[in-house]
Amino acid sequence: MSNNGSVGESCYSPLVREPLSEEHARQLAGTLKAVAEPARLRLLSLIASRADGEACVCELTGAFDVSDATISHHLKVLREAGLIERERRGTWLYYRVCPETLRTIADVLMPAGAVPA
Amino acid sequence: MSNNGSVGESCYSPLVREPLSEEHARQLAGTLKAVAEPARLRLLSLIASRADGEACVCELTGAFDVSDATISHHLKVLREAGLIERERRGTWLYYRVCPETLRTIADVLMPAGAVPA
Repeated sequence: MSNNGSVGESCYSPLVREPLSEEHARQLAGTLKAVAEPARLRLLSLIASRADGEACVCELTGAFDVSDATISHHLKVLREAGLIERERRGTWLYYRVCPETLRTIADVLMPAGAVPA
Repeated sequence: MSNNGSVGESCYSPLVREPLSEEHARQLAGTLKAVAEPARLRLLSLIASRADGEACVCELTGAFDVSDATISHHLKVLREAGLIERERRGTWLYYRVCPETLRTIADVLMPAGAVPA
């Protein structure tokens, strides 16, 4: 189970429509904490911006000036927050983003005027 | 100056379009950290969801079961991240969200298919 209480599992209203419940605020804060880290944001964008929407772990571990173990840790945090998922093919792991989680965060934060009535 | 290097000051591409630069990732992570806290998310939504788009501090301090000092601290963090702004009228402070900061975060995180070409 890679998705521990991710925001992707719940239905949220945009902030501008109604106050967040305590439970939704707790879940959303957990997901935002996972993404609120520079290296994790860069990893997420490296994966999300690939033309085929996925990246081999071998393309990610050499991307920044940090150890492979650190990259693995960040990938695990993103995965446990339901922001990315992985698939093993042969000897390599392939990562892709979970669009529904990103969309939930984006939709909740979208300000007035950008939210459909 | 209440806006210390807020994401509202820079131009970002969506994650799905191109990898985030180190500098943009750092700025964005800072803003996301400010919002990645349950009480701050609830405060933000309390302010954002008001019909007139603003809330008196007197309406916020009684909203949760935490001290006024804690609410003040959270409001300061949100303000320093460029997520809300305040205005004094008479003896009260009034808060409103900064839609451009929320929109920047939402636009950056919006997944493929939801991003205009």
